[in-house]
Amino acid sequence: MLPQILLCGDIVWMSLEKVEAMFEGLADIVQMNSSNRADFLASFQSGGKHERVVGIYRRNMSAYSIGTFDKNLIEGLPSIVKWVAHNGAGYDQVDVHACKNKGIFVSNVPNAVDDATATTALYLVISCLRHFSYAERSLRAGQWKTSISARNTYDLTSRTLGILGLGGIGLRLAHLAHAFPMRIVYHSRRRNPKAPEWCEYVDNIDTLCQQADVLSLHVPLNQATEKIIGEREIRLLKRGSVIVNTARGMVVDQEAMIKALEDGHLSSVGLDVFPNEPEVDPRLMKFRQNVLLPHMGTETSDTEAAMELQALTNLRDFLKTGQGKDIVPEMRA
Amino acid sequence: MLPQILLCGDIVWMSLEKVEAMFEGLADIVQMNSSNRADFLASFQSGGKHERVVGIYRRNMSAYSIGTFDKNLIEGLPSIVKWVAHNGAGYDQVDVHACKNKGIFVSNVPNAVDDATATTALYLVISCLRHFSYAERSLRAGQWKTSISARNTYDLTSRTLGILGLGGIGLRLAHLAHAFPMRIVYHSRRRNPKAPEWCEYVDNIDTLCQQADVLSLHVPLNQATEKIIGEREIRLLKRGSVIVNTARGMVVDQEAMIKALEDGHLSSVGLDVFPNEPEVDPRLMKFRQNVLLPHMGTETSDTEAAMELQALTNLRDFLKTGQGKDIVPEMRA
Repeated sequence: MLPQILLCGDIVWMSLEKVEAMFEGLADIVQMNSSNRADFLASFQSGGKHERVVGIYRRNMSAYSIGTFDKNLIEGLPSIVKWVAHNGAGYDQVDVHACKNKGIFVSNVPNAVDDATATTALYLVISCLRHFSYAERSLRAGQWKTSISARNTYDLTSRTLGILGLGGIGLRLAHLAHAFPMRIVYHSRRRNPKAPEWCEYVDNIDTLCQQADVLSLHVPLNQATEKIIGEREIRLLKRGSVIVNTARGMVVDQEAMIKALEDGHLSSVGLDVFPNEPEVDPRLMKFRQNVLLPHMGTETSDTEAAMELQALTNLRDFLKTGQGKDIVPEMRA
Repeated sequence: MLPQILLCGDIVWMSLEKVEAMFEGLADIVQMNSSNRADFLASFQSGGKHERVVGIYRRNMSAYSIGTFDKNLIEGLPSIVKWVAHNGAGYDQVDVHACKNKGIFVSNVPNAVDDATATTALYLVISCLRHFSYAERSLRAGQWKTSISARNTYDLTSRTLGILGLGGIGLRLAHLAHAFPMRIVYHSRRRNPKAPEWCEYVDNIDTLCQQADVLSLHVPLNQATEKIIGEREIRLLKRGSVIVNTARGMVVDQEAMIKALEDGHLSSVGLDVFPNEPEVDPRLMKFRQNVLLPHMGTETSDTEAAMELQALTNLRDFLKTGQGKDIVPEMRA
């Protein structure tokens, strides 16, 4: 009897036959169809339909039926489960420390997401500085030009882009913005050795905020980064600045951000992520110049297909060699 | 008595005092306030308030009161008028041949517009390939995700951008898109010696259309370019292609384009310009994935201020030296 690989979330870009062929002789592929957590956890019990599951492929959409992979869920898994291959760059829905305690490896999908997510951030930068979003809606509402004056719109060229978190996505955005060029300043926990010379490192967030015309966020969500951009940091930005967020809604203090929009300290925000998705605070929509996307950072056929393949490959490598790639940083330490 | 410079269109970015200072000792600045063409032409007559006008600063908005600078208007100007400084890259609202016959120089504003217009084109490329525009409207309408599938969305990276017209704007877009990189193919009346090696020249429009995933238009509007992209060229594009137009609405056969949207040959179009602005054919709005902007290509405070200064400088150079810069190509031949 082969071990099982459990799919928590649909396979979208490959056929199921192709996935089965990938794992031929290594594991049987089974699909999660629990509608609640109790049923899900019961399925792993001896005699249950998932009793031989050693690895789990996971998408965030599985949270709608069984909740996130929080401490409670992880602790409920049997010890035979050794790998959670999360299909996404951000893995805040997986309790990595609980996994570590239990001896379960967690992989994410870095790199594959960089291009599409950085492109989304660039789009938000352009639209915020140019007021394109409101202009489009205005045109479709039958009004040719909006009431927003060109006085408040800007070229990207020669403005300063502050990047918080220069991982793969932040660095990719730096390269795209350098084409204009924008001046690029970044802060990360540590210097990125891949950063080109024109990508200026500053060793604290305060300086980053003071210099940026546009602040773009590219940090993972964890205890250290929750509300890392708060009232204080927002007020260090110049008046009229723009915040772009394609990371996670919770890395910004939303109340402080909305207050700064209300009093004009921020001219606009470009958001692909929100603290409580799919809910969007209606106050954000009142500001016509805000650009609000429904978490589409990685949403392209090219990128999603690459991510799916990469997450599954991490599981296969684990089964074949005992070790998969893309283990999240917290587990490497 | 100094000659006069007539402002056909408001000065927006400089104070009138500053403009007067620019022309001190060279010309008096007078403003057009005619509400119709007859009144406008009468003002140049001997004893009229504009009888000493030798140069005209012109913005397209003046067409709302006195019409375009067509043959009839140009022929009605007295022979003392020697220069029309048009504030814009496109000068299709000025009959250059009538001006030439009359010994009136026409200058436009190239270069200054390149950055903002190419950025607009890049924005349209991103939004069309990613379906961001519809997603934003969907979110604001209270629906988190749209019904359009990620299957029909694409990364820019590695796709082919076809550029028709590699002048300043086209070349600027090439550089911005090369950052991804997209593959860049272009056709122009002649090769652009400034084109880098990665910017591939093809010697006919058919080949350009056959190779492009996204076709972006950057030709001026004139008799040779009106509907230069027609039914035939659109059908040479691959099924599912995108057309981006930041040039002039009339360079595309709009009926053929709408037909191709209706039968799915084109997946979307990104338009900043329309054949009969400010009118927008309502059929274009039916396609939710289309991205429609109200002619904002150069609309940033940075670019508009630079354009205004450049157009006025062309007039001042003419007054000071007898020759201004940026004379349109048709007059240089």
